[in-house]
Amino acid sequence: MRRRKKPGSEEKLLSKDKLVVKEPEKYKGKWCSVFQQIGEIHVEIGTGRGQFITTMAEKNPHINYIGIEMKEEVLLRAVTKAEKKQLENIVFLWFDANRLIEVFEKGELHRIYINFCDPWPKNRWAKRRLTYRSFLETYKSLLDKQGEIHFKTDNEKLFEFSLNEFSICDLRLRNITFDLHQSDLKENITTEYEDKFSQMGKPIYRCEAVKRN
Amino acid sequence: MRRRKKPGSEEKLLSKDKLVVKEPEKYKGKWCSVFQQIGEIHVEIGTGRGQFITTMAEKNPHINYIGIEMKEEVLLRAVTKAEKKQLENIVFLWFDANRLIEVFEKGELHRIYINFCDPWPKNRWAKRRLTYRSFLETYKSLLDKQGEIHFKTDNEKLFEFSLNEFSICDLRLRNITFDLHQSDLKENITTEYEDKFSQMGKPIYRCEAVKRN
Repeated sequence: MRRRKKPGSEEKLLSKDKLVVKEPEKYKGKWCSVFQQIGEIHVEIGTGRGQFITTMAEKNPHINYIGIEMKEEVLLRAVTKAEKKQLENIVFLWFDANRLIEVFEKGELHRIYINFCDPWPKNRWAKRRLTYRSFLETYKSLLDKQGEIHFKTDNEKLFEFSLNEFSICDLRLRNITFDLHQSDLKENITTEYEDKFSQMGKPIYRCEAVKRN
Repeated sequence: MRRRKKPGSEEKLLSKDKLVVKEPEKYKGKWCSVFQQIGEIHVEIGTGRGQFITTMAEKNPHINYIGIEMKEEVLLRAVTKAEKKQLENIVFLWFDANRLIEVFEKGELHRIYINFCDPWPKNRWAKRRLTYRSFLETYKSLLDKQGEIHFKTDNEKLFEFSLNEFSICDLRLRNITFDLHQSDLKENITTEYEDKFSQMGKPIYRCEAVKRN
C-alpha cells in the first residue's frame, strides 16, 4: 500500500528558507558561500528523519553539513530537528541522489555518509543501490583528494555487495565491522532506524571507503 | 587435551622422497627446478589433510603446487592422497609458515591459498593469525606482480579482521562473499573441514586479495 502523503508537507518544507536550499544547482562549486564559516562539507545521502546529521552538526560545529532527501515528509522532520537545535552549520536539499553532479562541483565535498539506504534486494535492481559502481564513481569525482565515504547498513547482502563495489572502484576500505554496536568504534552516532533495529539485537555493518591519492 | 602423535608418522613422511622436500631452504629462488614443467607456483599454507591442494593439482596440471603444513600426521595424509593420484605437479613442505622467507625468493610465487586457518580468537593472539599484517607483508614480498591471496574461513570474526588487514596492507579485495556455497562462484574446491562445516548449514566466507602494480 502506498502511504498517503501528509497534506501541506511540501509547502511547509519550502517555507523553511534558512534551512532548505531552493534551486541548489545555483550553488554548484559555491557551497562554501551558503555557510557562515569556511570548513569541510559533509553530505548525507538519504538523510531521512535527520537524527544522524543533526547530531553530527551539533557535535562538530566546525564542519558544514548538507542533508539530501527525496521524500518531503521525512525531510520536514529532519529540518524541524535542525531548527529546534538552532544549528547554523547545516542545510538540506529536497533532491534526488541520481542528480548529484548537477549540484556539486568536482572535489567540493570531503565526506559522504550513506546510512541504511534501500537494499534493492533483487539482482536486476543492483544499479539502483546507492553503493552501485556508477554512484561510487560520481561520489569519487565529487570528493576531494582525501575524501571518504562512510557506510552503514543492517542488510548483510547489501554490505557484501557494497564491499565488492568499493573495491572494484579502487576505494581503500577501512574500519570494516560486521557488528558495529559490539565493536571498538567510539562515538557512533545512530540513525532512528539504527536504534530500532539494533534494539532487536540485529547486527549493524559499517565501513569506510577512502579515495586513493 | 593434547592429542598423542601416531608413532612413526615422522619417519613415514620423510620416506616420501618424491613428494616431501627435505631441506627446502636449498630451493629458495629455484623452485621451478623441483618441478618437471615451467609454470606458476601456487602455495597452500596449512595444507592439512590435502583434499583441496591435491584436487587443485589434478584439475590444473599446468600449475605447480606446494603444500605447507607443520603437523606431520595430517601432512602424511595429504602426501598419501597425492601419491594415490600419481600427481607430478605437487610437492609438500613439513615447515612453519613463520619461516616462509627462508624458502622462497621475492616474487617467486603466483598465488597463496589460506584455507580455514586457526582463528586465534583472543585479541592478544592477533599476531599469530595467518592474515595478520606482518604475514601479509611477507606474502606480498614473495608474490609476483600479479600475485593473489585466496582466503576462506568459517569464522566471521576472523573474516572481518582479515578484510581489514588486507586493506591496511593495500591489497585490492575481490570476489568477497559471506556465503560461498550460496554464491555465484563456480568450481569451488572444498577442504575436508569445509565439507563438514558447510553440511551443518554454516556459511563459508571467502575473498581474494590481489597485489597492486
